Amino acid sequence: MALKLVKQNKAFGGWVKQFKHASSATKTEMTFSVFLPQEAETSKVPYVMYLSGLTCTDENVTTKGNSQKWAAKHGIAFVAPDTSPRGAGIEGEDESYDFGTGAGFYVDATTSKFSTNYNMYSYISKELPGLLESELPLDGGRKSITGHSMGGHGALIMALKNPGMFRSASAFAPIAHPSACPWGEKAFTGYLGEDKTAWAAYDATELAKSYDGPVLPILCDQGTADEFYEKKQLLPEDFAAVAKDRENLHLESRMADGYDHSYYFIATFMEDHLDFAANYLKK
Amino acid sequence: MALKLVKQNKAFGGWVKQFKHASSATKTEMTFSVFLPQEAETSKVPYVMYLSGLTCTDENVTTKGNSQKWAAKHGIAFVAPDTSPRGAGIEGEDESYDFGTGAGFYVDATTSKFSTNYNMYSYISKELPGLLESELPLDGGRKSITGHSMGGHGALIMALKNPGMFRSASAFAPIAHPSACPWGEKAFTGYLGEDKTAWAAYDATELAKSYDGPVLPILCDQGTADEFYEKKQLLPEDFAAVAKDRENLHLESRMADGYDHSYYFIATFMEDHLDFAANYLKK
Repeated sequence: MALKLVKQNKAFGGWVKQFKHASSATKTEMTFSVFLPQEAETSKVPYVMYLSGLTCTDENVTTKGNSQKWAAKHGIAFVAPDTSPRGAGIEGEDESYDFGTGAGFYVDATTSKFSTNYNMYSYISKELPGLLESELPLDGGRKSITGHSMGGHGALIMALKNPGMFRSASAFAPIAHPSACPWGEKAFTGYLGEDKTAWAAYDATELAKSYDGPVLPILCDQGTADEFYEKKQLLPEDFAAVAKDRENLHLESRMADGYDHSYYFIATFMEDHLDFAANYLKK
Repeated sequence: MALKLVKQNKAFGGWVKQFKHASSATKTEMTFSVFLPQEAETSKVPYVMYLSGLTCTDENVTTKGNSQKWAAKHGIAFVAPDTSPRGAGIEGEDESYDFGTGAGFYVDATTSKFSTNYNMYSYISKELPGLLESELPLDGGRKSITGHSMGGHGALIMALKNPGMFRSASAFAPIAHPSACPWGEKAFTGYLGEDKTAWAAYDATELAKSYDGPVLPILCDQGTADEFYEKKQLLPEDFAAVAKDRENLHLESRMADGYDHSYYFIATFMEDHLDFAANYLKK
């Protein structure tokens, strides 16, 4: 088995398990956590992939996201990958909270310094689903994706770039137009270079303009008291403006009065996001 | 106001707030967190005090305990105090995970070294409720108590030593007979001295023998895969054996198959414990 079990805890009738494995995409060891509901003991179950935000590991949402209760209710698994390679040994990768370690931005890097390891797009869209679906009781034909902030960006681009792969997508306060915000500009310059035409391939707002896959239901929640929303790092309105004109993007975009960017916001709305995903996964 | 707001986050329609204040019981600054449901904006609400276990601060259960959802459902507040004074400056207080800082054991210390600061019994049973009920919209006539491990011990002794103060008590994997387990023996020796007759005043199993207050409903959950249960640190069976003969202790004691001592266990059963408390708080 390519997956090495690190630890497991019983939760909500199922199990939270943390695994490590060697990654061909990142050339490092990668860690992820998964909640397997009780149903996984006897059959393959659908799953939701949750992509985390800047600075997070697989453990933040697993311990603080209030996800297991609702995953258990629906009999679906909840997968929480890490946010970057770790320990790649690249000079400078540990200097910023918003670039390098903990900040892979779900792209395949093309700059020479990062292209060997920082391939989170391939890791999340290909390598990890392959491992999950071959080594765990997860049904690859029924999966959805969600995420927070940088991970909300990740969830949207994974769904938009791989039509039909995910039955639905959702996002908590996503970096919805990274080419046009400081976080995205820094990350894309570092991983993809100065040429902005290359950035569009990893920008949800740009990708939405040409989406012509099957109908993709999307739920997006944004807190009104989110400091990064106020600082124009997230720009969900840019994504919404494009999505409303695309026949096959069925976006429900909501503003949550008084909520900030924290895990309390995520925990509050996790129930809605897993209900939303389950509605498509159970069909 | 004696309470200084440290931070606040909107959650589940209400607010998680962290406060600091100078404590007369511990002669240090103390920190606690509280979830105030939406109803607290317009009226006083009942509350549940949750006492945490060894090594924890007010933040562990607040971020990982899955409490706000169920407190919000019932319109009750959820208060999470710290587990000891911090920074008292006593030689040796930071050397062990199970004694001193993070391990106050909810007693009023009598040994000369600790008696000035380590007065968590007075802090939890008198000072903190006084502050909460005078400075926040909490209804002192409707409160219950719960806790985990060392905090489960704390919850049980607070309820048993103060008949009528709490409408119900509950515990997750409590240290239910501290005089008879290594954790309790170490802590009680350090805080109360070698004379074991003094220990009985802070031991739930001993206190239960003479409880003659009003009917006290108690819910106790214990995981069967809890390493500390296996190591005889918890001994819930000792408490249950005494409680079953006490007319006014109405104990529901449950074993949870496969659950360990972690926050996943707490998060799983928090719904039951807050439902249990709410049943008495709403009357």
